[in-house]
Amino acid sequence: MVYAGVDVGGTSIKIGLVDSNGNIIADNSIETDKSRGYKGILDDIVADIKVLCEKTGIDYHSIAGIGMGLPGVVDSRTGTVSYSANLGWRDVPVVHGLEVASGLRAEAANDANCAAWGEYKFGSSRGMDSVILITLGTGVGSGIIIEGKLFDGVSSAGGEAGHMIIVKDGKQCNCGLKGCWERYASATALIEQTQEAMAKHPESLMNKIAEEQGKVSGRTAFIAAEQGDKAGKEVVSDYIDYLATGLINLGNIFHPNAIIIGGGVSNEGPALIAPLEEKVNSSLLANEHNPKVRIIKASLGNKAGLIGAAALVM
Amino acid sequence: MVYAGVDVGGTSIKIGLVDSNGNIIADNSIETDKSRGYKGILDDIVADIKVLCEKTGIDYHSIAGIGMGLPGVVDSRTGTVSYSANLGWRDVPVVHGLEVASGLRAEAANDANCAAWGEYKFGSSRGMDSVILITLGTGVGSGIIIEGKLFDGVSSAGGEAGHMIIVKDGKQCNCGLKGCWERYASATALIEQTQEAMAKHPESLMNKIAEEQGKVSGRTAFIAAEQGDKAGKEVVSDYIDYLATGLINLGNIFHPNAIIIGGGVSNEGPALIAPLEEKVNSSLLANEHNPKVRIIKASLGNKAGLIGAAALVM
Repeated sequence: MVYAGVDVGGTSIKIGLVDSNGNIIADNSIETDKSRGYKGILDDIVADIKVLCEKTGIDYHSIAGIGMGLPGVVDSRTGTVSYSANLGWRDVPVVHGLEVASGLRAEAANDANCAAWGEYKFGSSRGMDSVILITLGTGVGSGIIIEGKLFDGVSSAGGEAGHMIIVKDGKQCNCGLKGCWERYASATALIEQTQEAMAKHPESLMNKIAEEQGKVSGRTAFIAAEQGDKAGKEVVSDYIDYLATGLINLGNIFHPNAIIIGGGVSNEGPALIAPLEEKVNSSLLANEHNPKVRIIKASLGNKAGLIGAAALVM
Repeated sequence: MVYAGVDVGGTSIKIGLVDSNGNIIADNSIETDKSRGYKGILDDIVADIKVLCEKTGIDYHSIAGIGMGLPGVVDSRTGTVSYSANLGWRDVPVVHGLEVASGLRAEAANDANCAAWGEYKFGSSRGMDSVILITLGTGVGSGIIIEGKLFDGVSSAGGEAGHMIIVKDGKQCNCGLKGCWERYASATALIEQTQEAMAKHPESLMNKIAEEQGKVSGRTAFIAAEQGDKAGKEVVSDYIDYLATGLINLGNIFHPNAIIIGGGVSNEGPALIAPLEEKVNSSLLANEHNPKVRIIKASLGNKAGLIGAAALVM
């Protein structure tokens, strides 16, 4: 069986043909042309799926369904995007629209949920029962799977762990709240923390590394720390501490089998994952009597959303 | 049908006979005699159920089952108390023990979960799909029901929302963490906040009220605020703000139909509930596009645990 997976972002759309084992047969990326309205965007997606079919010799009408991940509040039960700031959509009946445009069966869910579903079905947490995916990027995304089911609350309005307040009256977040986890644990926050430390410690290796790389990135402090830089080590340690705080909260609330870490920052690998796993598990309530919450690096990279979207229709 | 419900606490045990509609036919309270070990305690419970049967003329053998709520980590799937600090128990096969002692079918769950289950089946949130019960007492207890099922994570080790960190590096909590929600939002915390404000504002009405009542209680600041006392109003407003912080987090993660507030502090009624509902709903992500999270006072009082325990075997 072949399925189509679509991962819609604010600037580009990833589209792929995926087999029953979660392998990508062919994929592509197109621009998100918001000026064309939602129907135009859905037409663009269908046209691109047809291009992929031609390339691979797969009969378009043999595709078993299209799954779509979208940035925003997606009510997967009604197939409607209630609200998407990135796309400027409100109450868009996206599943119906896609079925009309494609002539195929369609499903839709929030993009972070799709990524979690992809990792759960075909990635790092395959075979586990309850897992949470945390994506460290511009913000902190989250997807929660409980006993084999995607969980996102009434009308799919929940699952927003990135906006958990961990520092009451803390830094202002775009969402209107103060002290949200993502203000301290996203890649954006890590870069901000690195820049602050660089200004405070002109002698730090971080300044040299950033100059060589032409920019401050989420990697800057990790590279410096690896080379023994004191200020770099501090940035990394503080960042991991912030990240752990939210994970401890999720651990005490959900106690999942594992928390999967995705997004660019997760590429730091063991330097990030090992201290995180230690910190989280030593902090959980009654931890000596309970199973460990494993902390695992996501394995599907930035294709998790596409693969998970396809898995919605499997 | 008649069921027995048991709510085991560290110092006393509430025991009741409950009908299929969640009404208590007769109930009682006995001492938790820890010196007798867990088997002794289970025998005491069974003996008391027999006393209640005699009193009411109900045939003991007609009881359809015994449900038991326990303070600690209860793995409801295996019927085992993994750990209870209050009872000093570790890996106690409590369901099997109770079935042997009683000759009846038994079930067990964490006490906060039982209270949530009671409110969900027969109390304030009857007929709703997903609800969270928050109990404001010595600590902050929580019970989470998602789509009609009690949720408490792998091995029932989750559901501990009271230990969500809301003030990173904040006040030391008994659990070992710092800045847990219960350090700011429990009845204990409210009393502490009241005492601090009283010391800072000797002119405040709170001092007079506490003197008249012979103690500082969770009510002191609310009574003063009601009478227009400035410092009292501040305590109430700050306390509601702390309470709201945790509820906003739960709202953004779970987006339940309702959050039920129980425990002594909930008796403040509208003075607590109304500003809380306003604050929480105006702070939730994309709140204008999503259903409201209702904040409701628990309706079963301190019998919720007993009734919910009985409902485990219904």
